[in-house]
Amino acid sequence: MPAQGRVERRGSRVPAEVGLTQLRGIAQVALSSSPWTGLLFTVGLFADSWRIGVYGLLGAAASALAAAVLGADRRGLANGLEGYCGCLTAIAVVVRLGASWRTAVLAVLAAAVCAVVSAAAGRLLGRAGLPALTAPFCLVAGALAIALPPAAAAAAPPAATDRFTTLSATQLGHAFCNGVGQVFFLDKWYAGLILLAGLLVASRTAAVAAACGSAVAILTACSLGLPADRISAGLYGYNAVLVAIALGATFLTLTPWTAGYATLAAVASVPFTAAWQAFAQPSGGSPFTWPFVVTTWLFLAAAPALDRPGISFEKAK
Amino acid sequence: MPAQGRVERRGSRVPAEVGLTQLRGIAQVALSSSPWTGLLFTVGLFADSWRIGVYGLLGAAASALAAAVLGADRRGLANGLEGYCGCLTAIAVVVRLGASWRTAVLAVLAAAVCAVVSAAAGRLLGRAGLPALTAPFCLVAGALAIALPPAAAAAAPPAATDRFTTLSATQLGHAFCNGVGQVFFLDKWYAGLILLAGLLVASRTAAVAAACGSAVAILTACSLGLPADRISAGLYGYNAVLVAIALGATFLTLTPWTAGYATLAAVASVPFTAAWQAFAQPSGGSPFTWPFVVTTWLFLAAAPALDRPGISFEKAK
Amino acid sequence: MPAQGRVERRGSRVPAEVGLTQLRGIAQVALSSSPWTGLLFTVGLFADSWRIGVYGLLGAAASALAAAVLGADRRGLANGLEGYCGCLTAIAVVVRLGASWRTAVLAVLAAAVCAVVSAAAGRLLGRAGLPALTAPFCLVAGALAIALPPAAAAAAPPAATDRFTTLSATQLGHAFCNGVGQVFFLDKWYAGLILLAGLLVASRTAAVAAACGSAVAILTACSLGLPADRISAGLYGYNAVLVAIALGATFLTLTPWTAGYATLAAVASVPFTAAWQAFAQPSGGSPFTWPFVVTTWLFLAAAPALDRPGISFEKAK
Repeated sequence: MPAQGRVERRGSRVPAEVGLTQLRGIAQVALSSSPWTGLLFTVGLFADSWRIGVYGLLGAAASALAAAVLGADRRGLANGLEGYCGCLTAIAVVVRLGASWRTAVLAVLAAAVCAVVSAAAGRLLGRAGLPALTAPFCLVAGALAIALPPAAAAAAPPAATDRFTTLSATQLGHAFCNGVGQVFFLDKWYAGLILLAGLLVASRTAAVAAACGSAVAILTACSLGLPADRISAGLYGYNAVLVAIALGATFLTLTPWTAGYATLAAVASVPFTAAWQAFAQPSGGSPFTWPFVVTTWLFLAAAPALDRPGISFEKAK
Repeated sequence: MPAQGRVERRGSRVPAEVGLTQLRGIAQVALSSSPWTGLLFTVGLFADSWRIGVYGLLGAAASALAAAVLGADRRGLANGLEGYCGCLTAIAVVVRLGASWRTAVLAVLAAAVCAVVSAAAGRLLGRAGLPALTAPFCLVAGALAIALPPAAAAAAPPAATDRFTTLSATQLGHAFCNGVGQVFFLDKWYAGLILLAGLLVASRTAAVAAACGSAVAILTACSLGLPADRISAGLYGYNAVLVAIALGATFLTLTPWTAGYATLAAVASVPFTAAWQAFAQPSGGSPFTWPFVVTTWLFLAAAPALDRPGISFEKAK
Repeated sequence: MPAQGRVERRGSRVPAEVGLTQLRGIAQVALSSSPWTGLLFTVGLFADSWRIGVYGLLGAAASALAAAVLGADRRGLANGLEGYCGCLTAIAVVVRLGASWRTAVLAVLAAAVCAVVSAAAGRLLGRAGLPALTAPFCLVAGALAIALPPAAAAAAPPAATDRFTTLSATQLGHAFCNGVGQVFFLDKWYAGLILLAGLLVASRTAAVAAACGSAVAILTACSLGLPADRISAGLYGYNAVLVAIALGATFLTLTPWTAGYATLAAVASVPFTAAWQAFAQPSGGSPFTWPFVVTTWLFLAAAPALDRPGISFEKAK
């Protein structure tokens, strides 16, 4: 993930640095290293539920602390790269298992394991020139989700129909906002809007990419005839939002070619997400952000082999 | 995949070149770059059903066009390497969801995504010296198969018995031909024979390897006690056919050692196929040609570490 | 895996060498190359059941023979690196399908495929500096387990509760011994103790690591509220035992940092094992030692990126 923010070390302002690291850790969920983005993201988490806010902060702190104790790279740590997977993992724990001392300990340990998995992913994927993205979170949270299923089993998602799904205006609005909100497991539309504002603070391109990603996902999901209530809940959108931010505003230089390339990737992420949900459902699992991770890896790995402005980024070097 | 065919560029004969690229794209499904093979394969597709023929041509064209638009490698494009995954993906779409304008658009988009995934697979696997084979098709078609299951769910394959399966003469003949035909999802025995003739046109070794692969698969499946009707439908054979073509006639130099090595691989692909079918069945998925892809990767990756004539191909360089 | 034992070639003592190779092949299941360890392990196998003993010896021999015929690396062969996956695969076959001429042939062929997969895994993983561990066994045995399910389907494992699981003293003792025994599919507590003695013969560190791994796994499984009878059967322990041996006594230099690191890995392997069991259950599969393999890969791959004594082993070179 990008190291946009410069880390400034002024004298002994350790508490301020820790706070910045914490906020950057939360911002990195959407590939940003701006503490302002992190601040607004945190507001969005608490706007949805105080439990999600507390566990998010706890997970990011636990993961960063574990990375510091284990002696991980200090630059990445200061940029929040050691926080975002722990943050998401802890939120996944509280959303599934509820808040208690027991799940808090579990969230802290899982976040610590995220730090190790992030280091491993960084080394293994670095050889192929690929970023780790949220893969460590997906792996750790995925294992926990299947090992410790919630009391009530999730209902099987209804199958796609062979007709275009139509949405009411309210459903459409909810689908758009929740597509952004579900990046953090948020299911209140205004929380999604706060996240979007958080993106806007750091980069107009990222915010526009996220909005376009959510819109593209709704259109694709409706074309595939996927169920309206799940589209409205943002369940097909969050991966497309992240794909659009990653390819449209982060790892590739923005050109008309890149915009089309990112759009194709966002479109592809929707059936991929639907497939992963259907596949993981019987064992109580969830796709989390695997569809985003795999789609982005494939489109980034393909880029240098393609000869179009903005896409073949490695050739420019 | 091999670049056997030489691409000849004569003046402005663009339409002829486009046609050759298209035929080579279809031939590359069986690792051949001969346009004559592609022509006979196309005949085989139409012999089974005009829908499969039309979608096969459509998918190969869409994938090659997307690759050309995205600026993929021109040499690979001319040799058909950008066509075969799109061809198979489009056939998978029509076999599952039927022919309609809606599925045609889906097939075109899926074939375009195949072009990107092929570029990614080429780069990621190239580091390990492995070919992409049909992995892009398996990934894209696999996601679509689970995301958009057909109306009627597939019945669970009956479990293997602990006795040798006996086949009637008709079943045996069908099993042999369908093992080849199922490479393209064909379930009419004469279509499989036309495919075999297509292989024979380009390379006698490839045709013999395919025939042996189909025979070995039948023997292995019967020994494992797998159900007779599925053996007869060629469902355990097509991966072994492709494995035999890949290891026995394409990537390794043919020696007695290689022949034995390819036989072991073909045998291994049968329980692997049965396992993948049982595993994918609950979520409506299909193994497609993953067992071929993974078996071939493993046997190719192992080859340089083994010190026998024909197998350790890299040492010969 | 480590090449600790020195291979001595004295004149024409071929039978003795073959015997040593065989014993080392069985010892390598627990990452040891001591023939004495292998001898005690073999005693443990026969103590559990003569069938397991016979199939274990048969599989190790078949795999080593296939590797020799295919021309695999002689040094690794002599150290038993070509035997352990075949040994485990053959035991998995007899435990699932029972002893008969048919399953004996199956075990021999599966063990031969293990030799090829080991060579492939060695080359592919060697690029990332990772050992193959028992991945070839897990792949081959996993495919067979799903392709050829036993007559009676396994019952779904009961879900974890949200309370600490309490064990009786007998259950605790069984859980401790079976955690070691299940490395070889053994379910008699005294067989586990013989295995532990086998480890002790070669390395006190390995034996202590295995014992600690089993204890840590029991504590973790109880904290997660996993069912008592499965804890007592050692089903959550054997991966932790192998993780502890690999990280605590084999691949990293033992320091207080490494001990903590290995403990975190052993803890993480328990929910990972529970998740894999729940995931594999519907298709009749089993996690085998995948959780050990993946956890160890991740913690080894992360190690060089972490800057603590004993963990960042590559920096020491």
